[in-house]
Amino acid sequence: MSLTRPRGALRPRTLLLLLFLCPSLLYAAGGESSLPDLLLVVAAMLAGGKLLGEGAERLGLPAVLGELMAGLLLGPSLLGVVPAAGQPGAEMITVLAELGVILLLFEVGLETNLTEMFKVGPAAAAVAAVGVTVPFVLGWGYWAHFPHPIMQDGGDLGTVAIFVGATLTATSVGITARVLGDLGKMETAEARIILGAAVLDDIIGLVILSVVSGIAAGGAISAAGIATTFAVAVGFLVAVVMVGNFVVPRITDRMSRMRARGIVVVFAIAFALAMAAFAAKVGSALIIGAFAAGLILRNTKQAHTVEHQVQPVAAVLAPIFFVSVGAACDVRLLDPRVPGAGGLLTVAAVLSLLAILGKICAGWAAPWTRFDRLTVGVGMVPRGEVGLIFADVGRRAQLLSEETFSAVLLMVMVTTFLAPLGLKLIFGRAARPAANAG
Amino acid sequence: MSLTRPRGALRPRTLLLLLFLCPSLLYAAGGESSLPDLLLVVAAMLAGGKLLGEGAERLGLPAVLGELMAGLLLGPSLLGVVPAAGQPGAEMITVLAELGVILLLFEVGLETNLTEMFKVGPAAAAVAAVGVTVPFVLGWGYWAHFPHPIMQDGGDLGTVAIFVGATLTATSVGITARVLGDLGKMETAEARIILGAAVLDDIIGLVILSVVSGIAAGGAISAAGIATTFAVAVGFLVAVVMVGNFVVPRITDRMSRMRARGIVVVFAIAFALAMAAFAAKVGSALIIGAFAAGLILRNTKQAHTVEHQVQPVAAVLAPIFFVSVGAACDVRLLDPRVPGAGGLLTVAAVLSLLAILGKICAGWAAPWTRFDRLTVGVGMVPRGEVGLIFADVGRRAQLLSEETFSAVLLMVMVTTFLAPLGLKLIFGRAARPAANAG
Repeated sequence: MSLTRPRGALRPRTLLLLLFLCPSLLYAAGGESSLPDLLLVVAAMLAGGKLLGEGAERLGLPAVLGELMAGLLLGPSLLGVVPAAGQPGAEMITVLAELGVILLLFEVGLETNLTEMFKVGPAAAAVAAVGVTVPFVLGWGYWAHFPHPIMQDGGDLGTVAIFVGATLTATSVGITARVLGDLGKMETAEARIILGAAVLDDIIGLVILSVVSGIAAGGAISAAGIATTFAVAVGFLVAVVMVGNFVVPRITDRMSRMRARGIVVVFAIAFALAMAAFAAKVGSALIIGAFAAGLILRNTKQAHTVEHQVQPVAAVLAPIFFVSVGAACDVRLLDPRVPGAGGLLTVAAVLSLLAILGKICAGWAAPWTRFDRLTVGVGMVPRGEVGLIFADVGRRAQLLSEETFSAVLLMVMVTTFLAPLGLKLIFGRAARPAANAG
Repeated sequence: MSLTRPRGALRPRTLLLLLFLCPSLLYAAGGESSLPDLLLVVAAMLAGGKLLGEGAERLGLPAVLGELMAGLLLGPSLLGVVPAAGQPGAEMITVLAELGVILLLFEVGLETNLTEMFKVGPAAAAVAAVGVTVPFVLGWGYWAHFPHPIMQDGGDLGTVAIFVGATLTATSVGITARVLGDLGKMETAEARIILGAAVLDDIIGLVILSVVSGIAAGGAISAAGIATTFAVAVGFLVAVVMVGNFVVPRITDRMSRMRARGIVVVFAIAFALAMAAFAAKVGSALIIGAFAAGLILRNTKQAHTVEHQVQPVAAVLAPIFFVSVGAACDVRLLDPRVPGAGGLLTVAAVLSLLAILGKICAGWAAPWTRFDRLTVGVGMVPRGEVGLIFADVGRRAQLLSEETFSAVLLMVMVTTFLAPLGLKLIFGRAARPAANAG
């Protein structure tokens, strides 16, 4: 009877943690990086990310928060398992993380139904437009007109302000969709508007990313420059999706009749990588290419197979991205004993407030349609992975200082943290009368 | 009606080739390696490997041959798309290839049924033992006693001869199983003996790999040294599988009740990576750890889920290994106009002959059981990925010269090439009278 073991059930998990974390800590104690050490770091990132992700889900929070927390824990500022930039192995982790975000956006593309989005129509478009414009103006205005002495950014104030504004524009379709699905509210008018607007925001966000990437690469900010980047990003998406929709289904049809093992998924991923590289080469962003590859493959007869088989590959690589983003945040900056920590927390709090207010405003766009405006506004709040990607581009270009990056990361975490709680509360409140009526 | 397009059907494939190969060729022309360039190289390796793999399958040959050929084509000695060791990006490709072979052996472990293997019993064991011993003695004797002046190996002759002998011992269970499955002969007595012996050979091969890796790392060859390495490898496998079979099923049972997306496959892969690193740290080989992780997870209730989800991940990463092994072969050495090429081809021909004869002998082991001895012998011939791994370890340790590596690679390719053809012919011959009788 001891086999069923109803008590002491925590033991296996404790063992598991020891199994993964101890060797990794030993690694951190050493210095030289070999392949086995790198494998241990990746194993610790995967196991730690998933364990804390599971913990977050059990608390009713999105799993991505747990993965970010795992990154904070394993990162150079705490346990030191994930190597800091410049340390041995750091470049490998970066490449694996980039592969992760490429596959993630490829997957989002595969799941993005352009037709459905067009149906939701004007209401979603208005919500998306307001939800991008208001947070951008708030963030940009705050940064440009109330510069905090603690933030020592690399670029000139105007450029950095645009970057900070851009990080406030994102909406995480992944997190919103997951929360709505978990609450069983996918079929409400509000959910359809939130999702439509979030998908639109994702596309607008990708274009904005392209613009800010151009700025990060040292391009001067001019109306002509932004127009060019915008035109390249939109032109790339439209041209590639049009040509792709014509050519690719014929190729995948042939491929689905081939016999080589896993040929469809391998070609799909090779296509996503090639498109990502192609986008970067023509002046757009890697992930726009990956997203476009997903949109194109969605229109093939093999879309279901591809989505089904890309899922495990993305599931393995995407956490490496989220964990390494979390690891990039220097938690020592938040230590209240450090001079300036108070300033950092103040800035993060103001940014978070602006981020939440800006998105909630979006609920009051489209006055000609009837829907619960607070629900839609709250549904637009989580910044999630897209906000992280923006912040990361700015940090790598040394435009955003470590302090600003940490403040933005805090804002992303706060919005991603609060939105699911808010949606749960609001839908709970709305559901009770409905349940009584039913 | 032009939409169905019965003619000109080759066009999409031609387009596809252009899509993947042109940017990669452009890359090869440039020099500096950035992330987009690396993505293009990986995309070209995946697409090229799968296309030639498909071509090989259509010709009735194993797909792995096509992937090796793609490596030859894309490698530094021909198109130069895959960077040579020391060139920018080469280290990244190596790490991705190592992840590929780790996942491949993890998958073989997941598919290895220890119980079935024990049932096939003494006959398979005798075939495996003879199939390891005779080729090893033939290869070692040839190299130690008839040294060819063209082969300028790094180590002393005795060490290199042991290495060459070891490369002849492998049997590729993957290729044999695939061919038998394709011919619909899985239920014959011969197939069961071949598969049982091939699985045993895989395990013996992993132990031999551990010994030769120890030698490659500079260990002196002594009976005590080999015994120690053997004991470490076997001890590691036995200890880890025993402890794992006790602990891991409890962990995966808990995990299957968790909600985080893809948690089972992510933990399975983290486990395989950690075990691979652990094996390397205690003096065994990376892939023994990965194989052991597979054997352990096979005994859990979640084995089917894990196998199903690891498959696409392995399908994406394993070709990178095979293509980069093919790329490591310098085809210029085979140019008949180069001085010494004749010698190299002679050595490769002798090695191939010894490799084939040594394995065919194995068919006449176990005289107490009735089965078609030629069928079993031919079924044991393909060296496949395991032989490549051995040769690669020797090359990286600079024990095997480029010439010897190329000769061994040719031997691996010849055996892997001929065995499926042989099996097809033999089973075809055997099937005809049976069909008449039925």
